[in-house]
Amino acid sequence: MNIVIMGCGRVGARLAGLLDIEGHSVTILDTDTYSFGKLPPEFAGTALAGDGMDEETLKKANIEKADAFIAVTDVDNHNIMAAQIAKHLFNVPKVICRIYDPMRRELFSSLGIEALSPTTTFAQMLKDKIEGVEE
Amino acid sequence: MNIVIMGCGRVGARLAGLLDIEGHSVTILDTDTYSFGKLPPEFAGTALAGDGMDEETLKKANIEKADAFIAVTDVDNHNIMAAQIAKHLFNVPKVICRIYDPMRRELFSSLGIEALSPTTTFAQMLKDKIEGVEE
Repeated sequence: MNIVIMGCGRVGARLAGLLDIEGHSVTILDTDTYSFGKLPPEFAGTALAGDGMDEETLKKANIEKADAFIAVTDVDNHNIMAAQIAKHLFNVPKVICRIYDPMRRELFSSLGIEALSPTTTFAQMLKDKIEGVEE
Repeated sequence: MNIVIMGCGRVGARLAGLLDIEGHSVTILDTDTYSFGKLPPEFAGTALAGDGMDEETLKKANIEKADAFIAVTDVDNHNIMAAQIAKHLFNVPKVICRIYDPMRRELFSSLGIEALSPTTTFAQMLKDKIEGVEE
């Protein structure tokens, strides 16, 4: 698959590495080139400096041929905006974005883009682990 | 179950709410009482101001009768230290802590305390979601 990731923070860099190892064609975007240092040394994909909310940058990232777009910057609003551009302007089939604010996540899910909250998913996972003790 | 949570950030507060609703007896600790504002209004557990690395605070939180201890402050080292106190000094059966740094997590897991990295788990979840498209 052709995959474009916006945001080379800890999660973005790790995800890029995981997908690259499995043979996907990965392009990762970040406005701060220093952040590409988080990528694993063996990363064979493309690291592109630029803003994922900018159409020209997305075109350079080959968004028109992308099968999936994932927005994982630290700013919810940026993730939301980029995800909407990828979905509605470039018709990327699979669009996922990270949303920290659970309220916003529910609203956004109703717009047809998959929004995941790390807070919610992590709290749920901890709960499952704790309750596993009782079984 | 009697559950003590250290750190009333977004994850701690949400976890406390989830466990409380299910009838567990929850005590949540934070050094910053302002953070208790994140708890859901219907939270019926105990919110206790104090440091989870401090033995006296842990005793006040009834750690001696706790079935589980979860350390989810934003500081890895604090989580590690509190988890070790809970495990080795108070013999809490189930101890889980959040570790942001994946390297540290592996080291720490080898010490017998369950350490979970939100970065790793969230990246893996995103990967599974993306690859679900191909099926």
